[in-house]
Amino acid sequence: MRIHRLLVSAFAVALAGVTLTPIVGVTRGETPEGCLLPNRAMTMYVEELPRVDGKPRLGYGLTPDSASYPGPTIEMLEGECLAITVVNDVSAETLLELRNDPVVGGGDADDPLGVSLHTHGVKYLPSSDGTFENDSIVPVGGSRTYVWYAQPRVRLPNGLIGPGTAGYWWYHDHVVGTAHGTGGTASGLFGALIVRRPEDPKPDKTFVVGFGPDATINLRKYPATDCDPEQPIPSNSCYVATEGELVEFAVMGFGNDFHTFHLHGHNWANNRTGLLRTTLDPVDVVDNRTLGPADSFGFSIVAGASVGPGDWMLHCHVQLHSDSGMTTFLHVLDEDGDPLAPMPVPLHDH
Amino acid sequence: MRIHRLLVSAFAVALAGVTLTPIVGVTRGETPEGCLLPNRAMTMYVEELPRVDGKPRLGYGLTPDSASYPGPTIEMLEGECLAITVVNDVSAETLLELRNDPVVGGGDADDPLGVSLHTHGVKYLPSSDGTFENDSIVPVGGSRTYVWYAQPRVRLPNGLIGPGTAGYWWYHDHVVGTAHGTGGTASGLFGALIVRRPEDPKPDKTFVVGFGPDATINLRKYPATDCDPEQPIPSNSCYVATEGELVEFAVMGFGNDFHTFHLHGHNWANNRTGLLRTTLDPVDVVDNRTLGPADSFGFSIVAGASVGPGDWMLHCHVQLHSDSGMTTFLHVLDEDGDPLAPMPVPLHDH
Amino acid sequence: MRIHRLLVSAFAVALAGVTLTPIVGVTRGETPEGCLLPNRAMTMYVEELPRVDGKPRLGYGLTPDSASYPGPTIEMLEGECLAITVVNDVSAETLLELRNDPVVGGGDADDPLGVSLHTHGVKYLPSSDGTFENDSIVPVGGSRTYVWYAQPRVRLPNGLIGPGTAGYWWYHDHVVGTAHGTGGTASGLFGALIVRRPEDPKPDKTFVVGFGPDATINLRKYPATDCDPEQPIPSNSCYVATEGELVEFAVMGFGNDFHTFHLHGHNWANNRTGLLRTTLDPVDVVDNRTLGPADSFGFSIVAGASVGPGDWMLHCHVQLHSDSGMTTFLHVLDEDGDPLAPMPVPLHDH
Repeated sequence: MRIHRLLVSAFAVALAGVTLTPIVGVTRGETPEGCLLPNRAMTMYVEELPRVDGKPRLGYGLTPDSASYPGPTIEMLEGECLAITVVNDVSAETLLELRNDPVVGGGDADDPLGVSLHTHGVKYLPSSDGTFENDSIVPVGGSRTYVWYAQPRVRLPNGLIGPGTAGYWWYHDHVVGTAHGTGGTASGLFGALIVRRPEDPKPDKTFVVGFGPDATINLRKYPATDCDPEQPIPSNSCYVATEGELVEFAVMGFGNDFHTFHLHGHNWANNRTGLLRTTLDPVDVVDNRTLGPADSFGFSIVAGASVGPGDWMLHCHVQLHSDSGMTTFLHVLDEDGDPLAPMPVPLHDH
Repeated sequence: MRIHRLLVSAFAVALAGVTLTPIVGVTRGETPEGCLLPNRAMTMYVEELPRVDGKPRLGYGLTPDSASYPGPTIEMLEGECLAITVVNDVSAETLLELRNDPVVGGGDADDPLGVSLHTHGVKYLPSSDGTFENDSIVPVGGSRTYVWYAQPRVRLPNGLIGPGTAGYWWYHDHVVGTAHGTGGTASGLFGALIVRRPEDPKPDKTFVVGFGPDATINLRKYPATDCDPEQPIPSNSCYVATEGELVEFAVMGFGNDFHTFHLHGHNWANNRTGLLRTTLDPVDVVDNRTLGPADSFGFSIVAGASVGPGDWMLHCHVQLHSDSGMTTFLHVLDEDGDPLAPMPVPLHDH
Repeated sequence: MRIHRLLVSAFAVALAGVTLTPIVGVTRGETPEGCLLPNRAMTMYVEELPRVDGKPRLGYGLTPDSASYPGPTIEMLEGECLAITVVNDVSAETLLELRNDPVVGGGDADDPLGVSLHTHGVKYLPSSDGTFENDSIVPVGGSRTYVWYAQPRVRLPNGLIGPGTAGYWWYHDHVVGTAHGTGGTASGLFGALIVRRPEDPKPDKTFVVGFGPDATINLRKYPATDCDPEQPIPSNSCYVATEGELVEFAVMGFGNDFHTFHLHGHNWANNRTGLLRTTLDPVDVVDNRTLGPADSFGFSIVAGASVGPGDWMLHCHVQLHSDSGMTTFLHVLDEDGDPLAPMPVPLHDH
């Protein structure tokens, strides 16, 4: 049975209004089936950032100056096709240092030095795989265009439906340090990819939480992740929202360890969005979830719903991890934008 | 966008008949939004129990004499609001010993000594968080009232539905040993919280299974968990049911290790209750499930359905764990309440 | 409440046409309730295979000569009842060697030597449990008949529905090395059991992926798992499909370690089959999934859908595991059966 030729993009019409402007450097035949040509383009710069504890740190950025870890959150709508030109500004010396690092290195000396962009969840040709095996890396000083297609759900001839690509995914390097990008991800080359359907909730804020090597959250540990409860300043690892905002979390794991993501005072449905569409949905509801390397999930919550403003802990629930600093906060400000009001005291009666 | 003020408790009417009797010590404004005042109250005593291998053991109990690990199973219906007054009968000496324990301790010497009650899944104000950060612990010799609200599903203005709080949760200490309760949970301060919806199955029996540190089930190992197959006596780690009973399991993990919960001869749907409401439900069916620290889930099964009475193993499927004693049984008695009848022999033909 | 006697096999009629031929050696009363007599029978031989690194390797086979690891994939339809006669051709010396192996052994010297067949997901009497505890092993030189019943979904009196047994399961030894089969599974005694419903997709190919001890895929490591990209030859760890084929993966974990299963270029719904039946299904879509010991899942994908032919990596995403060889490929041939055509080059613009 050959199904491929009969695939029907029954849902592609949902993307009415997308302008199919040709992207420089990508021609027909170089895109996944269903994407005639990319309708969007961006450039991602891979940069060296200040070292931490003497170890290299790298980041993806939409500009060289804004490179960071995690990298920029990329949002797509199912049906869209995105061309990303990656520019490699990392020196051969640094890449060699990571390849020779006894902890995150060990790659084959015969492989070329470079960085790459490998993504989860969406469709891409082998030439956009971001691996040595598919000869799709970005050499030192070079650039390369990757094409991602957020394929919608497709009807198969047997009446079943391919699941599409909407979800909370992540992208990362696959060639720095080792052929699996162990040194690249550990140095900061990771970020969130969120693919939506038109009917999905539109969040007020999006927070990216990467549970990484050495019990870190986005490669930081408490107190480095901390933000002053009296005057919290939002950062890549300091999550600040106002009561009543719809905030979404995009969570991913990487490295070698397994973690459990836990958030105090809030919970979510264990499905694609964290919210329900019918009251009969039998899905389980969770506030703690196992997160293995490269697992990713996301959910939307109303910040402080029922529980109000406050400093809500967000931590790995592996005790050794949380005890060693794998913890931060979701600071929910009151509706005037102020931090937690003084707590009522009378619950003490001793 | 501010959603919070528009939340409508569309399902709160499901709780008709709940008497909203004021609870001593809790006044309006000290409860999560949606709970005007708690409709139920209980007292939980935190007690020292006989040491095991020289290490302290603690337990929650509805009376001082009935404290145990796991603690009492707390059941709520969505819509209910529960006030729990926790009395701390644990000595400062024992709490200090746990803080200084090299395995489960290491907390900050500046933090006060005490115990707490932190819960998963339901709603609570910061003052009921049970953490140092939210100044919500119970000092030595003191007491404190925690308020939990089993928020029902709520409609959001965008047509989506907040998932409510029904589920198999757990509660635990968050301040003994370390700021994450590593010493408290490892000593026995944990128990099950089950939040139901009106339409949920009503089990004949509920079994709590905590997969804890050192490859223990509710802090016990085989053969300590064992019960005589000839005359099994139900206990906190000896699960005995009669063929045909609807039994539910409330399962939780804690400590540092990941486990897989496996039950012989029975399986369940991987959703909120383990059972289906329609024959079209596409959910996966499992008899083995990964359980990370603070993960919790539950399910209902008909004991012995199709497979009959017998000694059905319940164990962690991590081989090192099961081989070192992380195993017990679900003993299913026949309908007369007797253990497994002699097995038919003729299946051997050697 | 006793539900058992009221169970109604409302869905058993779905199995119209199954001939209930009596199986030699199995009589009424020796089968799970709902299975009057097995309607199918097979013989499984347990054989010694060539050693690897000096360690014993064992396999299940439908004939002595075809024994392999993983063993033969067993497919059942819900409603079927299968009798499997297991013949133990493994020597006492080898079984004793595995029991004394410091890594995978340590079983009780008082237990008899033998092998067994324990399965997940389907129904079986204690006499088909495959454990010492239920006296259901196959002694050296002996044979034993196990009966498995793929119970359909059943309506319970309370309106709920038992979940049936359709799923991607696995079978394995439970008595070699230790009372939990640590030595048996580590030596090769495992295989896939797939239970279908009539409406499930019919795959063109089925691939079994066992993530086992020592970061192996079906007990092999790259490059042993590898197959020549220029001329890939399908094997137990070299997955080769043609573009457009509907291929299913049956994935299982065993041993002590946790893994994450990742496949490049493809994804699937996180439900029982990997495909959807309605476009409104809120299930999450994944391409990476945590896999603990004895966890199993499966899914169907259209090989190369949208992404075309190519060498698609399939690996554990725990970096230490993939870096040490826990990786292979799904080779998707083009519609003429040829390997990946040369890749388009112009995406490079450096």
